[in-house]
Amino acid sequence: MTAGKRETSMDKIFINGIVRTLDRAYPVCEAVGIKGGIILRLGRNEEVISCADERTEIIDLAGKLMLPGFVDTHMHLIDYYRTTRRIDLSTAESFEEMAGRIRERADQEPESEWVFGANFNQDNWENGVLPTRRDLDRVCGSHPVCVQRSCWHISVLNTRAMELTGLLKETRDTSLYMDFYDDGTPNGVIKENSQNKIYENFPVPEPEELKEWLKKAMADAAAKGITQVHSEDFQAFSRDRRELVMKAYMELAGEGQMPVRVYQQCLMPTKEQLERFLAQGHRTGETHGYYRLGPFKVVNDGSLGAHTAALRQPYACDPQTRGLPLYREDELKELFEIAHRNGCQIAVHCIGDASAEAVLDAYEYVMTKYPRTDCRHGILHCQIMDEELQDRFRQLNVIAYVQPVFLRYDMFIVDDCVGSELARQSYNWRRFCDLGVHQCGGSDCPVEKFDVLPNICHAVTRSDNHGAPAWYPENGVTVDEAVRMFTTEAAYASFEESVKGTVTVGKYADFTVIDRDIYEIPSEEIKDARVEMTVVGGNVVYRRT
Amino acid sequence: MTAGKRETSMDKIFINGIVRTLDRAYPVCEAVGIKGGIILRLGRNEEVISCADERTEIIDLAGKLMLPGFVDTHMHLIDYYRTTRRIDLSTAESFEEMAGRIRERADQEPESEWVFGANFNQDNWENGVLPTRRDLDRVCGSHPVCVQRSCWHISVLNTRAMELTGLLKETRDTSLYMDFYDDGTPNGVIKENSQNKIYENFPVPEPEELKEWLKKAMADAAAKGITQVHSEDFQAFSRDRRELVMKAYMELAGEGQMPVRVYQQCLMPTKEQLERFLAQGHRTGETHGYYRLGPFKVVNDGSLGAHTAALRQPYACDPQTRGLPLYREDELKELFEIAHRNGCQIAVHCIGDASAEAVLDAYEYVMTKYPRTDCRHGILHCQIMDEELQDRFRQLNVIAYVQPVFLRYDMFIVDDCVGSELARQSYNWRRFCDLGVHQCGGSDCPVEKFDVLPNICHAVTRSDNHGAPAWYPENGVTVDEAVRMFTTEAAYASFEESVKGTVTVGKYADFTVIDRDIYEIPSEEIKDARVEMTVVGGNVVYRRT
Repeated sequence: MTAGKRETSMDKIFINGIVRTLDRAYPVCEAVGIKGGIILRLGRNEEVISCADERTEIIDLAGKLMLPGFVDTHMHLIDYYRTTRRIDLSTAESFEEMAGRIRERADQEPESEWVFGANFNQDNWENGVLPTRRDLDRVCGSHPVCVQRSCWHISVLNTRAMELTGLLKETRDTSLYMDFYDDGTPNGVIKENSQNKIYENFPVPEPEELKEWLKKAMADAAAKGITQVHSEDFQAFSRDRRELVMKAYMELAGEGQMPVRVYQQCLMPTKEQLERFLAQGHRTGETHGYYRLGPFKVVNDGSLGAHTAALRQPYACDPQTRGLPLYREDELKELFEIAHRNGCQIAVHCIGDASAEAVLDAYEYVMTKYPRTDCRHGILHCQIMDEELQDRFRQLNVIAYVQPVFLRYDMFIVDDCVGSELARQSYNWRRFCDLGVHQCGGSDCPVEKFDVLPNICHAVTRSDNHGAPAWYPENGVTVDEAVRMFTTEAAYASFEESVKGTVTVGKYADFTVIDRDIYEIPSEEIKDARVEMTVVGGNVVYRRT
Repeated sequence: MTAGKRETSMDKIFINGIVRTLDRAYPVCEAVGIKGGIILRLGRNEEVISCADERTEIIDLAGKLMLPGFVDTHMHLIDYYRTTRRIDLSTAESFEEMAGRIRERADQEPESEWVFGANFNQDNWENGVLPTRRDLDRVCGSHPVCVQRSCWHISVLNTRAMELTGLLKETRDTSLYMDFYDDGTPNGVIKENSQNKIYENFPVPEPEELKEWLKKAMADAAAKGITQVHSEDFQAFSRDRRELVMKAYMELAGEGQMPVRVYQQCLMPTKEQLERFLAQGHRTGETHGYYRLGPFKVVNDGSLGAHTAALRQPYACDPQTRGLPLYREDELKELFEIAHRNGCQIAVHCIGDASAEAVLDAYEYVMTKYPRTDCRHGILHCQIMDEELQDRFRQLNVIAYVQPVFLRYDMFIVDDCVGSELARQSYNWRRFCDLGVHQCGGSDCPVEKFDVLPNICHAVTRSDNHGAPAWYPENGVTVDEAVRMFTTEAAYASFEESVKGTVTVGKYADFTVIDRDIYEIPSEEIKDARVEMTVVGGNVVYRRT
């Protein structure tokens, strides 16, 4: 080797892979050479190995599948971390099972400590009844107890917790989203953003502690093959702690302590928060190493399971409600006008059709009033909608952020909630693809686990992956389309398609390695595939041992 | 109409078109609504017309074809303008015919005025002999006469012109590229960049005059359906007049006087010029309205017709030469290293395979030594090359800038120049497409006319479009691929694919309207199609009357 040789040698070469690049230049190749975190060579083993010298690390993929790095386009890193500290109630199959876990945790803690449970779902229980304050008191009266439903739009507190938060004093004329017993006292059920009242007196971590939380959360994501998350964190502390959150991320980025890339979904519920953000000079695309600012985000309705998703018609199973739109259309227009005119991308949580319609109307208004190139505004979740609303995504070139994994549970409730005529048009990922709408995938973790392969599996099979018959299987996508939701289309959603989303010479060396070729196995087996390795910017950030 | 209505109404709506968007969202649609220079609505007539009010201009396309605006990715606007002032010799079918036109012009001018002729080609004459100084003296001895070959790599001067330029005093030991008679005196043939010696004593126009030249040249381009040119102009005055040229363009851009967009190919033959450019803060992508700075450009060899294209093997028809490489590989590396490390795109003129090989080697060197995302370096012309060199475009993700119209003439000389084995691998646009190489189209105007439709026609038919049998027709592309060379791929070559290159909501309203649907007619008729209208940033900059 000469000195000149090293200058054109690779840092690392991956060989013996089935590299599905998603790029027409090398649809499938064996080997990838990288240097300085960038893909520089693709081809057959011998072609790429010719760029090695003795300092080049050769990584044998041993016939495994390499894809462009997976991206989760909607999740919550800080909330995810906190969930890992809570009792996992997602597998509780009855109220009694949940109660047992609460008592077990309470027995280990002093009475001053809160007992938090996450992700219960009474629809999985035989009686299907949402518990209330007095039910929880019978489980544990000593400690403050708070359990959150899997949809994250409902929490239930026991009496001790209601006292400590001051919520027990509320009456029916409150402006909070909460329910009451017939006797007029609060029943402990707190909904939507009123849940902030539960948490707002808790101490917020110091920046150094928050950085540790984020590092653990990012490491967990990397272990699932994820190379970038679009994460929503500004309101994770039930009040606007944007500056703390940005400081923690920016310091981690500056210290090179981010194993994965983060595109921040900037949830700012009020005009004042948005205006302050803009006045400080922040915009979509601001970049600090692996940390980038993403869209201005608002939440425009609730969830289907909680009957708070805003529908145009009353819930079929609950005719006295159409759900809970959280902004009036004039409020949406005002917020969007500010964000749009300042060059920001916008993304809005909409689950019900009334919510999506209001947001699409407001997008049409601002995009036409103030024409701008390449806005990439989007709607998160896109669940209940008819074909006419879908057509408007194409018409306005609006991004659909979807969570195929939601189907696992929603397939059992959507027809009941909205009737089959609307249900068969909803969650219609096939038609979004056919319309040429940009459609990217996410998990909404910790609402769901952020494992990407089961998520891809749901997108294709349209089943719960546990034997239930597929739900409107004609609305499913191909494996390739599902993979693109978590790679190519995800890169588009963050304006990074020129440097991410395919395995292409000149793009970042972000890869996910999987133990089998998911393009060649029965699609219901995709959920069982395992992530072998995760590579971000050329660094191996996870390797299965 | 209410005030609110106007806010979401279009400025202009094009209806009744066959709009081939090149975008999967609306592959073909009828109508396009635009506002503020941006595409905001696509669809059926009635869908888009619903966004009109009484101030909306409705433009009836009457069944004509609308495409994304054509882009010429390599031409010379200033040289084009000057050619319009010269005698057009491109149609002269003999030396005598050329001589007649020279005498006619000389008779109209005082003896102090130069007589310039452009684009003669002796290969179209029966004897096929390149004229020399004394041949021209017999035509006109009184005026200085200079005729330039159609390849622009050779000029021939009469004795008067050689005296005035001082070139008559040169001897065989000169460092200039020029030829001599057996008697040792210059024969008037001046080649490659030594042609600068002819022009360097001519006065350079004042900025205001240059702006007029550019406006006329751009208006002519618009009349051919062109919405953007990648133009190379810095050396148009045979010495570095970069600052004058940039000043003229930037003033025109600031005054809104550019009918078309210009992406400047920044020809800077020396390291000193490049370093000064960078020291002034200029980089690829610098934007002044419709004027943007493009790649650093150098010319690395000559032309095939002049036998100055640098080949790896001697010319089959002229075995004493392999052409004229203009830079050593270490010089290329040094220049590229400076440009690449400063974030510039690079584009290099290479016609022969030796030239392309040297440039690809130098690209590989700098791209691997200093890894950078998304470089988009390219090679202009890409004519003589074997499949192995083509493969390296894919390997390094290098852009191929091709001029299909060159085939019109070159199809008759390539086999003679390089032999059929290499000829059949050359000009192989089909294989570049199949390799997934980014391939964009241009005219090299004024070397050729900048009409895009005949250029597309050559790309598909591989014929001279005047009845000669197609030349290696298997190397041709489809109509759609050819159109993409001048639209989508051209947008990629200027890093503008997110705002140009397809008809997509959120992109600039740049369109070319053609009198017939070139996708549906016999491909040899594409050359006869006519441009009906050119739209740039929503403004109709040309309309056929």
